[in-house]
Amino acid sequence: MTEGFTLWFTGLSGAGKSTLAGLVAAELRRRGQRVEILDGDEVREHLSRGLGFSKADRDTNIRRIGYVAKLLSRNGTVAITAAISPYRETRDEVRRQVQRFVEVYVSTPVEECASRDVKGLYARALAGEVPHFTGVSDPYEPPLDPEITVSTLGEPPETTAARIIARLEELGYVAAGVLS
Amino acid sequence: MTEGFTLWFTGLSGAGKSTLAGLVAAELRRRGQRVEILDGDEVREHLSRGLGFSKADRDTNIRRIGYVAKLLSRNGTVAITAAISPYRETRDEVRRQVQRFVEVYVSTPVEECASRDVKGLYARALAGEVPHFTGVSDPYEPPLDPEITVSTLGEPPETTAARIIARLEELGYVAAGVLS
Repeated sequence: MTEGFTLWFTGLSGAGKSTLAGLVAAELRRRGQRVEILDGDEVREHLSRGLGFSKADRDTNIRRIGYVAKLLSRNGTVAITAAISPYRETRDEVRRQVQRFVEVYVSTPVEECASRDVKGLYARALAGEVPHFTGVSDPYEPPLDPEITVSTLGEPPETTAARIIARLEELGYVAAGVLS
Repeated sequence: MTEGFTLWFTGLSGAGKSTLAGLVAAELRRRGQRVEILDGDEVREHLSRGLGFSKADRDTNIRRIGYVAKLLSRNGTVAITAAISPYRETRDEVRRQVQRFVEVYVSTPVEECASRDVKGLYARALAGEVPHFTGVSDPYEPPLDPEITVSTLGEPPETTAARIIARLEELGYVAAGVLS
């Protein structure tokens, strides 16, 4: 049986986590791996409806995602999470519970995320309309020693995704293969 | 890749769900299947801390278990749940979302569960000290058309577990094999 692992994306809203998660998932599936994406918004709906964005509520949400990622990855599935997960200590708590844990820091700077503003949230946050908005009115604590760091500046997401796959090969989490 | 499914035990507290879940899990693992048990108490701790036992809170808890069972079973794992799950409509809602769903009704009568009283809860419930206790001060709605019904009366749990496995073979969810 193939071994699963957890690929834990972290970064600001709009950094590119979900896009990269989708591209990496597609490539891993192409190679025959089972993959499940636990996206922030979808998981909130299913596991954490009613929770808000205070530190305590965010931590609870992240712990739940971590629990599900643990169950999936210990059963041979690659669990890919794409929640902001702003707090270092909470990510490290999840790391201690998941056997094969790969943290991917998507380091897109806040200025770039704000200028993309895919969901129109930064404009509202900068206008003071969204309390607890990570990077604007709420903290983001970057990982100190992530397995993988990527910047999405100046390259298409397909290139960034390919670099993540290459790094997973280096780390021994996936077998080497030719990228399509 | 082997296909997963969800084996959803339902029945009163003390009916024997967890015992049977453990025995069935062991046999399926022995046959090379990946299995994850989502037990009521453990899942409450990880996914539903803070929720109580009102109908709304129970339903939320069951939906979360159903969501995780869906993710596991669609990735080739047998998800075995062993929560009371007292409400028929909520179980049927989960059934509609999980592709391969097998409901196991553990029909041990309340008098028998109360006389076993493994956790000492029935004595307290019958004394009026536990509000919302299923079968005593809260309803239990048995399934109308479960894939499997077992009674635990008058036979050791190993025999009951073997009958569940045999029925899973009949239904085509597991390959026929010799029971150890």
